[in-house]
Amino acid sequence: MVLYVIGLGLADENDITLKGFEAVKSSERIYLESYTSILMVPGFKERLEKLYQKQVILAHRETVELEAESILEGAATSNIAFLVVGDPLSATTHTDLILRAKHSSPPIPVKIIHNASIMTAIGSSGLAGYNFGQTVSVPFWSDDWKPDSWLERIGENLNIGLHTLALSDIKVREQSAEDMSRGILRYQDPRYMLIPQLISQILSAANSQKADYLDPNRTLAIALCRMGSEQERIVSGTLQELLDMANPSQEEAQAEEAEDDADELASEADLDKRRAARAEARAKRAFGEPLHSLVIVGKRLHPLERDYAASYACPGSNFIQVAQDVYGCKE
Amino acid sequence: MVLYVIGLGLADENDITLKGFEAVKSSERIYLESYTSILMVPGFKERLEKLYQKQVILAHRETVELEAESILEGAATSNIAFLVVGDPLSATTHTDLILRAKHSSPPIPVKIIHNASIMTAIGSSGLAGYNFGQTVSVPFWSDDWKPDSWLERIGENLNIGLHTLALSDIKVREQSAEDMSRGILRYQDPRYMLIPQLISQILSAANSQKADYLDPNRTLAIALCRMGSEQERIVSGTLQELLDMANPSQEEAQAEEAEDDADELASEADLDKRRAARAEARAKRAFGEPLHSLVIVGKRLHPLERDYAASYACPGSNFIQVAQDVYGCKE
Repeated sequence: MVLYVIGLGLADENDITLKGFEAVKSSERIYLESYTSILMVPGFKERLEKLYQKQVILAHRETVELEAESILEGAATSNIAFLVVGDPLSATTHTDLILRAKHSSPPIPVKIIHNASIMTAIGSSGLAGYNFGQTVSVPFWSDDWKPDSWLERIGENLNIGLHTLALSDIKVREQSAEDMSRGILRYQDPRYMLIPQLISQILSAANSQKADYLDPNRTLAIALCRMGSEQERIVSGTLQELLDMANPSQEEAQAEEAEDDADELASEADLDKRRAARAEARAKRAFGEPLHSLVIVGKRLHPLERDYAASYACPGSNFIQVAQDVYGCKE
Repeated sequence: MVLYVIGLGLADENDITLKGFEAVKSSERIYLESYTSILMVPGFKERLEKLYQKQVILAHRETVELEAESILEGAATSNIAFLVVGDPLSATTHTDLILRAKHSSPPIPVKIIHNASIMTAIGSSGLAGYNFGQTVSVPFWSDDWKPDSWLERIGENLNIGLHTLALSDIKVREQSAEDMSRGILRYQDPRYMLIPQLISQILSAANSQKADYLDPNRTLAIALCRMGSEQERIVSGTLQELLDMANPSQEEAQAEEAEDDADELASEADLDKRRAARAEARAKRAFGEPLHSLVIVGKRLHPLERDYAASYACPGSNFIQVAQDVYGCKE
């Protein structure tokens, strides 16, 4: 029979294709890969099960990487469906499972059913897919771990005029260092990097690498949020303008400071947590719930691309002006 | 109401998403954009109509570019669906229609329903979407028009180690120069560039630009043919190996030469046409029917990418060896 590797598309259970849906219905077991992305609806496993009228098995990283045999079990006599949010092969993460199926004895035929991914949805920014260079993933930084090799890749793209899609990190089923050192298996709440943190890390990396190609006031970018969902939000502007969208107003900042000063019992750690929560709330007010991605615009910007992207400019944005002055996009 | 701009996906009518299908069913008029790509099944308009139980209107380039108003007509009171093979925004071709809808008075809400495109299907090559640079389109050359600005872009990608997706030209509803000069409106048969011609043009451009980065024996490539269809065919090898797949065997070449020599009545033009037909038949024998695209592998090739791509190597290919010797991909 067949191992179907099926893309679920961008946002919810109805983004599967008719072909993918038929393949699911013909399958004996249905796995949902649950560690590289998420469908942007609550209870998505249950929603899939309701649509398919079948049980869906969550496949965590450990299962797929260490117990691939259990996924492929019985594929000689029945179809197996392996569902992946977005397109199943936009990263190489799942080629291992596929190669394993092909190298089984006897080989298990594999059928890929493609779908839209964030790499297709970039078209909604108005920028042509043709003009994108390599894609980068920006990981969460911690106090003592700030990898920034992705910055050089943005620079390589910009250097030849190309746009860059920057994907923000997601952390699911993550363990705290403390729990791990104590041998406690307990997962923290999922974390999703939002636009302000993504831009802050980019600017911070550019600053520490002395990269002069990411001036926040002279670099255009487009925030792509919850693409393909009902809450899709697209916002364009300079990096600085996008960052400012999630800054507190002067009144807010004063009120928050007063609140913190008045709370004499709060520890520094408490205050840090509170400030982070406020920043997150403001980021969501400006850009909506995750997932968020960012397009950094390259110099080869075409007037047609500019016009479309500018239709999403944030209030008061200098998008058109910067496109003209810095990008030389004049017509 | 809404202008739905809906991707049909890669191959046939069942590649539409459930969401897209519902949008089509809710629409008063359904247009099928018929000039940037084709669904890879015969009679696809009729197949769509059968699936939708509705009439589908073919929208040629002239209609979309010059009569956009007629497409948007009535959108205030009913939904309109505009169908595009692949993803609707992977090129900017349709942003004009969308901007026009948004700028209508009153504005017509636009909803994009994304889908897989060849830019997603590249994942089936085994190469990671992350590691692709800009995409190039290679147009048909004629005797006196051989544009090759796309070569430099392949070079830019290779220079920073990135893979390149090269899309081959398609010509639909094309008029001959002769008919045009006589004012006769008559369309020629559609033409689709196949892998051998695509590679030949790439090598010829590299040769005339003295580009040393595309040595046919030291450059790896992956032919992606009819992606997403039942006849999907993926073949990897060096550029030269892929080219050789469509060359005649010695016996074939001799038999063809003998046949041509014996036909004393045939003009040079007749013979040229016959040779072109043979080359096309051989190209289709090796790579199948169109559409064909080609991935040119960049130096940043990862061992996981190599292993997957090598599983599609043509018989006798040096894929692994070249990956090791030229690409430094050793593990």
